Amino acid sequence: MLRSARVWFAFSVSFAVAAVAACSATRTPTSTAPASGGEAAGPVTVQEAAPTLSGVEAVDAAGLGKMWTFDNPPLQYLEERYGFSPSSEWFEHVRLASLRSGGCSASFVSPDGLVMTNHHCARGCITAVSEPEHDYMEEGFHAPAREEEPVCPNYYLDQLIEIEDVTARVDAAAPADASAEEATRLKQAERERIAESCQASGDLRCQVVSLYHGGIYSLYKYRRYDDVRLVFAPEGQAAFFGGDPDNFTYPRHDLDVTLLRVYEDGEPYHPEHYFQWSEAGAEEEELIFVTGNPGTTLRLRTVAQLEYLRDAVYPRRLESYEDRLSVLRELVAEDEARAAAARNQIFGLENAIKAYKGYLSGLNDPALMASKQAFEASFRAAAVAADAELDGKYGGAWDEIARINERLMEFDPEFRYTDVGYFQTLELARYIVRYTREMAKPAGEREWSEEDVEEVERRINSERPIERDYEERLLAIRLERALDVLGVDHPWVRAALGGHDPQYAARVLIRESGMDDVDARRALVNGGVAAVEASNDPAIVFMRTVVRWTRELGQRMEELRATESLHEERVAKALFEVYGTMLPPDATFTLRLQDGVVRRYPYNGTYAPYKTTFHGLYDRAAAFDYKDPWSLAPRWVERKERLDLTTPLNFVSTADIIGGNSGSPVINRDAEIVGLVFDGNIEFLPGRFLFREDDAGRTVSVHSMAIIEALRNVYDAGELADELQGR
Amino acid sequence: MLRSARVWFAFSVSFAVAAVAACSATRTPTSTAPASGGEAAGPVTVQEAAPTLSGVEAVDAAGLGKMWTFDNPPLQYLEERYGFSPSSEWFEHVRLASLRSGGCSASFVSPDGLVMTNHHCARGCITAVSEPEHDYMEEGFHAPAREEEPVCPNYYLDQLIEIEDVTARVDAAAPADASAEEATRLKQAERERIAESCQASGDLRCQVVSLYHGGIYSLYKYRRYDDVRLVFAPEGQAAFFGGDPDNFTYPRHDLDVTLLRVYEDGEPYHPEHYFQWSEAGAEEEELIFVTGNPGTTLRLRTVAQLEYLRDAVYPRRLESYEDRLSVLRELVAEDEARAAAARNQIFGLENAIKAYKGYLSGLNDPALMASKQAFEASFRAAAVAADAELDGKYGGAWDEIARINERLMEFDPEFRYTDVGYFQTLELARYIVRYTREMAKPAGEREWSEEDVEEVERRINSERPIERDYEERLLAIRLERALDVLGVDHPWVRAALGGHDPQYAARVLIRESGMDDVDARRALVNGGVAAVEASNDPAIVFMRTVVRWTRELGQRMEELRATESLHEERVAKALFEVYGTMLPPDATFTLRLQDGVVRRYPYNGTYAPYKTTFHGLYDRAAAFDYKDPWSLAPRWVERKERLDLTTPLNFVSTADIIGGNSGSPVINRDAEIVGLVFDGNIEFLPGRFLFREDDAGRTVSVHSMAIIEALRNVYDAGELADELQGR
Repeated sequence: MLRSARVWFAFSVSFAVAAVAACSATRTPTSTAPASGGEAAGPVTVQEAAPTLSGVEAVDAAGLGKMWTFDNPPLQYLEERYGFSPSSEWFEHVRLASLRSGGCSASFVSPDGLVMTNHHCARGCITAVSEPEHDYMEEGFHAPAREEEPVCPNYYLDQLIEIEDVTARVDAAAPADASAEEATRLKQAERERIAESCQASGDLRCQVVSLYHGGIYSLYKYRRYDDVRLVFAPEGQAAFFGGDPDNFTYPRHDLDVTLLRVYEDGEPYHPEHYFQWSEAGAEEEELIFVTGNPGTTLRLRTVAQLEYLRDAVYPRRLESYEDRLSVLRELVAEDEARAAAARNQIFGLENAIKAYKGYLSGLNDPALMASKQAFEASFRAAAVAADAELDGKYGGAWDEIARINERLMEFDPEFRYTDVGYFQTLELARYIVRYTREMAKPAGEREWSEEDVEEVERRINSERPIERDYEERLLAIRLERALDVLGVDHPWVRAALGGHDPQYAARVLIRESGMDDVDARRALVNGGVAAVEASNDPAIVFMRTVVRWTRELGQRMEELRATESLHEERVAKALFEVYGTMLPPDATFTLRLQDGVVRRYPYNGTYAPYKTTFHGLYDRAAAFDYKDPWSLAPRWVERKERLDLTTPLNFVSTADIIGGNSGSPVINRDAEIVGLVFDGNIEFLPGRFLFREDDAGRTVSVHSMAIIEALRNVYDAGELADELQGR
Repeated sequence: MLRSARVWFAFSVSFAVAAVAACSATRTPTSTAPASGGEAAGPVTVQEAAPTLSGVEAVDAAGLGKMWTFDNPPLQYLEERYGFSPSSEWFEHVRLASLRSGGCSASFVSPDGLVMTNHHCARGCITAVSEPEHDYMEEGFHAPAREEEPVCPNYYLDQLIEIEDVTARVDAAAPADASAEEATRLKQAERERIAESCQASGDLRCQVVSLYHGGIYSLYKYRRYDDVRLVFAPEGQAAFFGGDPDNFTYPRHDLDVTLLRVYEDGEPYHPEHYFQWSEAGAEEEELIFVTGNPGTTLRLRTVAQLEYLRDAVYPRRLESYEDRLSVLRELVAEDEARAAAARNQIFGLENAIKAYKGYLSGLNDPALMASKQAFEASFRAAAVAADAELDGKYGGAWDEIARINERLMEFDPEFRYTDVGYFQTLELARYIVRYTREMAKPAGEREWSEEDVEEVERRINSERPIERDYEERLLAIRLERALDVLGVDHPWVRAALGGHDPQYAARVLIRESGMDDVDARRALVNGGVAAVEASNDPAIVFMRTVVRWTRELGQRMEELRATESLHEERVAKALFEVYGTMLPPDATFTLRLQDGVVRRYPYNGTYAPYKTTFHGLYDRAAAFDYKDPWSLAPRWVERKERLDLTTPLNFVSTADIIGGNSGSPVINRDAEIVGLVFDGNIEFLPGRFLFREDDAGRTVSVHSMAIIEALRNVYDAGELADELQGR
């Protein structure tokens, strides 16, 4: 079913966005400077100042999780926690069998170049190769023969060939007496030079990754595979069974897998390193590893930052999602015909609300905050304050951050309640006011770049209709809130209300504005500042009055955040100076090794089992009378009798993942595939802030045997099962 | 599996206890006074003082639930909420097909006297008819022929033949100027007379039930069936699949059913009224009714009382359960051989902890407390305070209760932390001290009854060994807590510690006491007060020192509670004067009609479906690798292929049940069986204090089709399925 898969995609999109954000700081165009090697940057004062924690203890106490880099594998930790000592060949093999795609992870799983990833990661390809008479998102896809495997347009996979430590070189680019901003700029330039020269030297893709917020700079060299073809995809309904309600949850019953094949020179590629298939998957309590590209974690945030998120940002964001949802539901209730159009928006909001409630539940969990506080306090006292040098460099960072967050908290109500981003009417008015003022300036003095100007012009000229019912109702609610929170004398509120009540003001601002008429917008733009100044359009009048105030507020928030980010780096560096690579770096959408065990967890007054089975799929479908999103794809109805219904379908582990890990392989000690990561459970959401080994957060994966059983008995794709199993 | 079923029984035992407590106040020996009819006692001032709530609104706002009596069926409410208007024949039929057994409910389900109840309600019978070579709790039971249906010893079923309103007669027994205590005594005597004369007039069992705390007195006349035989029982493992972990939870997969048959004069009894079987069970959102005998609810408790439970009683009770559990776990960890013996205790404690955490979660839920507060405040203001007469009679009750609960809260720490009930050593010492003092008094002046004396003698002479390891460790923990909470100068603490630390004091009190030697105990008893006074036994010395203090504390608590209970009656009567039978009375372990709809609920970030299926059973078993308590009985493994696995197994509804409802039939509008109540979900536990129509609390029932499918295809009991389905 298209619509269900679509929202999964929203989840994967947020992974992708996170990933892009993580990359954009470090991705580099070409240049000519030569790359130089560097020594492994180690901890500076580990022995002296570190609280006396062993590897495992430190990992558990810090709550930074278990996302290890391949150039600093946690040998001591793995030995200590699991008695497992993989060889360097093991690490190399695992690294080279692992892949990255746009916002997702993947892996080589056969000698003939088969690649496994999530269905929701390959959605673009599945949609692109669909034909007018065949929607493969709905029907599923199975190439009848290798020659008929269709190319995924604009799809590529990156393989991490080598990691080179370039810390010394990057650091050397900034003189010791440079200011923080200057050092950042110089280092960034050096990173770009290193990456460019690396790319110039061959056909590799190169990226200098900042790990530990500049504690280590690593040159990541990728080989890119860009002839990737679609081999197999189940029906969207099988991949995303349970749809949005079951999203982020477990027990789960999703076959969220797609098989692709890499080609080289028109022939299937034969990778030297690929993951073999395990015989039966992982047992309960078995050690497993995930290899993938986690995007972003907020685990270095200080207590003060989390409090700001907890007390201001997330509750207000949730409130605004809920306002939007309530208006949409109202409109749908009044007019059934709107249901289809509003459905995706409603799903998206419901999912966002679920996620933010999960985050908030973590931040409101006294145990989580207590862990965070305990580690922060003991680290500051025992490691930083106890060492004069560290204290001088980093000691003040936490208090600075706390101060900044107090300021952010002060500005937050104004920032949130004057946000007009959900109202096209007001957004367009704002663009017009700003655009005409910008254009009135000489070209050299404009704040906007060429791209900014083009983007704004595109929006002003867009024919996309405005949903005035929706905007009017939502604005009335939001103005009511602004009035409550900011007070009637606030300049923005005064300008918005114009002496009326929120209901009336919203009607005037939305209904009486001509912003829904593209010609009226063009006329204003063409008339320039004078036309805008003379306009009586209520949205224009409102925006004209508040645009300067809004911009100043925005700038103030931006400045605070920029300063905050400098102090965040100090916190990160303090940790790195003390613990070095004993703790893993924050997620950067680069390849990590993520250890865990397959394990049940307490839920719902009892236990969630470590795995589900095909019986569970048929149970849940029947239990909802096969109503969407718990309907079954036709093949699954027809071929039920062929299946061994006790085959495991999904399973959970304590591996530490985050967005970007979608499509990651799950492997055992022998580097054999036992599963495929596709989600976390609801308890996993607070892992955004703090990873706790003993909590109920779990990674949810497709079980390796489910893939084989489905290929053989649902999809008549025995040849692919044979290929995966090496038969 | 015996042990699993056993703990289910513990759940049913607590139902039974609640039921007995509810009955004992109203059950009456025989007497000669004639029964007189009475007019239906109605609301006194409904029109004048009631807040303007309709039937449904009042029911939802009050939170007293939906446990209706058959003599005051909620006709207006049913019409208003469901558009359903059953006839008086419907009510009579339903009432006469419903049955009550010891602590449970049941029903007639065939013209040949088949009776359906829960497996956990028939455990006594199943165990009793087991043979040395056949444990029917483990194997299940199916009588090969009617002649071979074995008699359940000491088992009977009561059918509610008639309800007669005797309010006027009971009220007339107390003159208007009698004190509260005197009125209670006189009314109680009148109730006994009424019941006795009723029983004397035929072979009925009679009971005068106080509903609405004396707002209505009803004479309930039962016909008792005491030749009840076992027809069919599944394996304990099938009835209690998932054991203690899954207890109180849903999704669930239990075939918690047993079929019995009533005989009369050695032949199957042919009841005039029995429930027919529905064709396919209930659909989602379908209206259903439960008929059964709910035991006890605490829904009339005031906010102050709930706060006392929330802040003192339940947290301290939980703490003591957790202390006991931690000691047991420690002992088992040290000595595997103890595991078997400790297992039932551990399960029992785990279950109690789960239940109390559920209750506490309700009390700690701000929304629940807010509902309670809102209704209480509006009722007091709009109904009571606004009416001078009501205000004079009842206005002060809530404040009195609040004052008493403040006092209870003050005494509570002493009461809880000086409780030695878990320590046989100390209990026995206390009995000996008190027994010898009692026996030294002339017979007429003793506080103890003959039965008390006999009971104490039985305990003193018991050969039951004392677990000294357990008692010593637990006492050390409890003394530590008493020291923390009460302080070192508290007389009880001083006496207990004797100048030592808790660890040492516990060792002395338990190890150096001779209380584990029955001869030593007898010697002290035989030596009388002089021997006790002269004893150096540390437990005796301790108890000798504190016994007077402990008794005084106990008496103070008792007095407070007695006064509280008088004011509780005032609260109940105020409600009844305002709402009359518009609201249902508190649970009294008498027959009620409990309406609800079959409905999914939000759980775990998604929805729990309204039903589970046999697929779910096989899923959950496989998901735990068939490990106990998720193993399958052999027949269920062997005969899986015969089953339609999409058959519904359990389902949930919004019916309002409580302990005592186990075994209740679930019927549809046509009074056909659609299920069999056996539990609530975890969210249902706070329903003890407040019933909320829109929350996630649900009644969990066995689906009618599951019973048929299992009888036909697992148990080769097609003839029983035919009998149930009328084929």
